[in-house]
Amino acid sequence: MSLRVAVSGASGYAGGEVLRLLLQHPDVEIGAITAHSNAGQKLGTLQPHLFALADRVLEDTTAEVLSGHDVVFLALPHGASGEIAAQLPENTLVIDAGADHRLESASAWEQFYGSPHAGTWPYGLPELPGQREKLRGTTRIAVPGCYPTSAQLSLVPGFAAGLLEPEDVVIVSASGTSGAGKSLKTHLMGSEVMNGMSPYGVGGVHRHTPEMEQGFSAAAGEPVTVSFTPTLAPMPRGIITTATARLKDKTVDPARVRQAWVEAYADEQFVHVLPEGQWPNTKMVLGSNHVALQLAVDSRVGRVVVTTVIDNLTKGTAGGAVQSMNIALGLEETLGLNGVGLAP
Amino acid sequence: MSLRVAVSGASGYAGGEVLRLLLQHPDVEIGAITAHSNAGQKLGTLQPHLFALADRVLEDTTAEVLSGHDVVFLALPHGASGEIAAQLPENTLVIDAGADHRLESASAWEQFYGSPHAGTWPYGLPELPGQREKLRGTTRIAVPGCYPTSAQLSLVPGFAAGLLEPEDVVIVSASGTSGAGKSLKTHLMGSEVMNGMSPYGVGGVHRHTPEMEQGFSAAAGEPVTVSFTPTLAPMPRGIITTATARLKDKTVDPARVRQAWVEAYADEQFVHVLPEGQWPNTKMVLGSNHVALQLAVDSRVGRVVVTTVIDNLTKGTAGGAVQSMNIALGLEETLGLNGVGLAP
Amino acid sequence: MSLRVAVSGASGYAGGEVLRLLLQHPDVEIGAITAHSNAGQKLGTLQPHLFALADRVLEDTTAEVLSGHDVVFLALPHGASGEIAAQLPENTLVIDAGADHRLESASAWEQFYGSPHAGTWPYGLPELPGQREKLRGTTRIAVPGCYPTSAQLSLVPGFAAGLLEPEDVVIVSASGTSGAGKSLKTHLMGSEVMNGMSPYGVGGVHRHTPEMEQGFSAAAGEPVTVSFTPTLAPMPRGIITTATARLKDKTVDPARVRQAWVEAYADEQFVHVLPEGQWPNTKMVLGSNHVALQLAVDSRVGRVVVTTVIDNLTKGTAGGAVQSMNIALGLEETLGLNGVGLAP
Amino acid sequence: MSLRVAVSGASGYAGGEVLRLLLQHPDVEIGAITAHSNAGQKLGTLQPHLFALADRVLEDTTAEVLSGHDVVFLALPHGASGEIAAQLPENTLVIDAGADHRLESASAWEQFYGSPHAGTWPYGLPELPGQREKLRGTTRIAVPGCYPTSAQLSLVPGFAAGLLEPEDVVIVSASGTSGAGKSLKTHLMGSEVMNGMSPYGVGGVHRHTPEMEQGFSAAAGEPVTVSFTPTLAPMPRGIITTATARLKDKTVDPARVRQAWVEAYADEQFVHVLPEGQWPNTKMVLGSNHVALQLAVDSRVGRVVVTTVIDNLTKGTAGGAVQSMNIALGLEETLGLNGVGLAP
Repeated sequence: MSLRVAVSGASGYAGGEVLRLLLQHPDVEIGAITAHSNAGQKLGTLQPHLFALADRVLEDTTAEVLSGHDVVFLALPHGASGEIAAQLPENTLVIDAGADHRLESASAWEQFYGSPHAGTWPYGLPELPGQREKLRGTTRIAVPGCYPTSAQLSLVPGFAAGLLEPEDVVIVSASGTSGAGKSLKTHLMGSEVMNGMSPYGVGGVHRHTPEMEQGFSAAAGEPVTVSFTPTLAPMPRGIITTATARLKDKTVDPARVRQAWVEAYADEQFVHVLPEGQWPNTKMVLGSNHVALQLAVDSRVGRVVVTTVIDNLTKGTAGGAVQSMNIALGLEETLGLNGVGLAP
Repeated sequence: MSLRVAVSGASGYAGGEVLRLLLQHPDVEIGAITAHSNAGQKLGTLQPHLFALADRVLEDTTAEVLSGHDVVFLALPHGASGEIAAQLPENTLVIDAGADHRLESASAWEQFYGSPHAGTWPYGLPELPGQREKLRGTTRIAVPGCYPTSAQLSLVPGFAAGLLEPEDVVIVSASGTSGAGKSLKTHLMGSEVMNGMSPYGVGGVHRHTPEMEQGFSAAAGEPVTVSFTPTLAPMPRGIITTATARLKDKTVDPARVRQAWVEAYADEQFVHVLPEGQWPNTKMVLGSNHVALQLAVDSRVGRVVVTTVIDNLTKGTAGGAVQSMNIALGLEETLGLNGVGLAP
Repeated sequence: MSLRVAVSGASGYAGGEVLRLLLQHPDVEIGAITAHSNAGQKLGTLQPHLFALADRVLEDTTAEVLSGHDVVFLALPHGASGEIAAQLPENTLVIDAGADHRLESASAWEQFYGSPHAGTWPYGLPELPGQREKLRGTTRIAVPGCYPTSAQLSLVPGFAAGLLEPEDVVIVSASGTSGAGKSLKTHLMGSEVMNGMSPYGVGGVHRHTPEMEQGFSAAAGEPVTVSFTPTLAPMPRGIITTATARLKDKTVDPARVRQAWVEAYADEQFVHVLPEGQWPNTKMVLGSNHVALQLAVDSRVGRVVVTTVIDNLTKGTAGGAVQSMNIALGLEETLGLNGVGLAP
Repeated sequence: MSLRVAVSGASGYAGGEVLRLLLQHPDVEIGAITAHSNAGQKLGTLQPHLFALADRVLEDTTAEVLSGHDVVFLALPHGASGEIAAQLPENTLVIDAGADHRLESASAWEQFYGSPHAGTWPYGLPELPGQREKLRGTTRIAVPGCYPTSAQLSLVPGFAAGLLEPEDVVIVSASGTSGAGKSLKTHLMGSEVMNGMSPYGVGGVHRHTPEMEQGFSAAAGEPVTVSFTPTLAPMPRGIITTATARLKDKTVDPARVRQAWVEAYADEQFVHVLPEGQWPNTKMVLGSNHVALQLAVDSRVGRVVVTTVIDNLTKGTAGGAVQSMNIALGLEETLGLNGVGLAP
């Protein structure tokens, strides 16, 4: 089987990572590669690590160029994917790495994004309860945001098991700079980010907040609210998320709490609940689709604390996208994703 | 005026930073420099950036060597300072950068440190309410821990103003690796820390937790409990602390909340509440005694979020120590601390 | 076909990288995994990124444990591999990532290593002239040093084409810290290496110097001497080598010089002479077996300057080892090496 | 004594560093602060580490604004300073951190910069033979380039002592990213520079090459030519330069070679020839005006190798500028420069 796959937004970090993974996928033939302002340039000048594609020329991102493929990846600024997707055949598998189709609530979308809602697609986080089934056979996939991937994998098992209170959930994440994309901004320059950590989008305004609440609420069966603070860390890739929630029963046996997470991920190939006493490190998962997490019950204050690491570009974006593609098409879920984390 | 000052633990990061600052202090003459296993070596081989002291030989850390100075800095492993201090004259100003004399509660000490309590000294964080006065004229100072410095400066104004609930306080910090000291451990090697972020001491077990609770409780006038999670960041220096607490009145005017912090630090020379819209970055304060913070009210969830940056070795250790020394001796508070943050 | 492969030194960086690559090799089954002081521990505590092998227990590095495999990788301190190798069957493919069997000159070995020479094995740098043929069918392979890999790939085409003078060859390299291994040394700690660059082994004493001279001399057909200076850079992986040599004919057409490199690597899958105007960056090749280089003729001073990047652990050690294994066994040369450089 | 000092180009890295140092200078009052496109903004938004000047508003860079000061620092793009300087009074001390007035040879200027030569000013590297005297009382100073500062301090003692051949001088440097300035370019973004090292300006085309040759030729008394290759390193500040030249007498006693450097810098307060066996590291000098170097004779190939570290923004730009200002005005040379290198 050979799938013909197109990738839009190929000059950016998300698009580049999709291509990096597809080059290692045995069943994929890379078709059109498109960009916006960089159309007409050779990929080698923009993504020099993709030697095998160095001489490919970026085409314009149009429905015409993208049609005629089995799969189309959209790695576009939010707001751009809805329009393109509407012009692609219904039987083409369209995978949107942008935000447009993630939220079920149109009002949450409008509150946080300030534009009309483009509709909701099946959500590409197969490790959520019942989610893998919803992806099988679909032709439209919304890839989760990078922070929501790490946040939901951190706390959904506890909400699903009825262990966690729906209020005073606090999530603090640190992300590598590639999460901010390739746009030229002073605060993202190397001289500015090395040696520095800085928060942004503080106070409940980050657009990934409602996406986290959506996943938690679905798992909990009641509305969950979240205080989310992202920070920028001096590393190119990786997210570490510290997620903490109040236990409904402050006297619950910590072993029972742990069991909820162990069971939730028992059959998952990419999510690893580390042995007790071992803490995750973003280096464990760099460039891979793996997730590592550890949890602790703080009985003094009656809260559980979960720390989770992912690579924001791989499991947090392109890897989750390829994994979802494999599920949608009935392929083995790990194809193209056998890469091992790059340590040291 | 010329003070004769001794520094113990001079081969470590805290001791080295004390020396770095004292070299820039106009009223200080550096006397004995001591170490433990490195005694007998030249300082230049251990702290090569201190060119002016390169040929000084490290002496043994004994009361005999340390006596005969106006001021003695102790930068020793916890448990070691109490014994040495007891042998020094009462009129010598002894400044302990270790943990031994920070906690007022002997039971909290014993719970977190597992050894007998050495007693409580005046706490060297002059920006706390009423604390500066307690430092004037004292001859014993307990330098705060680096995380508690950033945490207390983050939330004490809100507790002192009666704005914050005493439960579900969540503090997540990221520290540069020098916070872990100079001891040889695999997870602290450069190959391991670059590109990596990792938590440790999760679940309410980190020893700085009761120190934070002590400061918050004093300010609030009621017992405050804290969920604290520290992480290690890929940078040598700097702490960013994200501190969030539930508002007693969820409908409070955000401007009134902000005002509590602005007023608390209006007369402080080292603490800067940034203009609205500007976020702190550890780079603003590297190598300096300055503190930068910003806060936001998240009305959706009824919490305040404060993000604060310090240099863990300067304001978080050696700078706070020198500042407290100046206060104790009636000197201008900023002497030796005019260094500006090293950016970029 | 399924090869049973043993890896010794599996707790170190070179051994870990061999395992990382073998996990992606379709024809390999990983057999014994051995260590020295870490024998008895689970691999997951020492190499947590290798999730698939987390529960494997490290065995002792003995000939008994290593025998019964088709291939044995030795990632041991120099001096240790000769003894072990002598006890392994002659028809076992033994691949030594250490230095013991690289040098042809016993006197050069003794001068730089100060111990008796263990003999010379076929040299695992197939891109050298005629070298690929020498590897086919061999059962003993000496993996080149990381610096010599980058240095020889930089200048051998010029020496082979008779363009370069044999004296005043100057090579300056910067390596990521993993090149120094996992041993606990103060100058390798994160707090020390971040923000710092430092030379070492200056003045013709680095042990990789005679290995470079061996390769250059063989290509030139006359003795070549080298001034080599290595430096340590604040990154975990990667080598950039700047290599410069005097042109025999200072008026030679720069295009003719360039042609020598283009032709030398025209059929190589892993070595990329970049398009004119594009410069290599270690990020292009991180975690991959690729090599990128660029050259310039400085007519003002009559020298050619070549800058070359590799990943010291991949092409510089484990990748070169796997590539050589594939050649020795008659497999496709790129098996297990389809990983793409991890950028950004 | 209080000098009124203006700083142009204050929004850039060089201008920011001048201000950082002037804030620590006891005899300086900071007057006008100017910029080009950022005029009208508060300094606090552009240089947030300069808390003491946060509310100062950037003015336009005009002769009118800059006049009326005792000292004017120009930190402008090359080509801009000549015009401004011509409009300033002759008795104002004008210190140009740009390239315009460094080169004595108009033809070298035109070859490398492609524009008319603006004339030559006294060169602000007082450690060169006889140079300190030329700076006393001058009202015009050309601040050296950062690479030439490190290169000349590396090899001038050897040329001045008649030890080195004028050909086959090879200099390879690695610089922190701040050396490339604050302009928005993709290859300078954090995601691109972390984990990466890359050369640029290879093959004798970097504009600092003739400046190095000028200094070497003056010291040697004969024309010296240089092969110079700069690389960009993953750190915000610091330069390490590896400089190597052929010895005129290959059998010279290494101790005599060393003595040339020791004597050249015996009376210098900022230049440190490290004890034998200790190697420089850029961390020794971060944020300080200090220089550390070490040398080795490689008798095998008859060359000397010198490795030298500076902070490109301090000794390499703003520190050298302030040091030269102090000399020109007859102040103590170290005023404002008592900062100690920021390690770890």
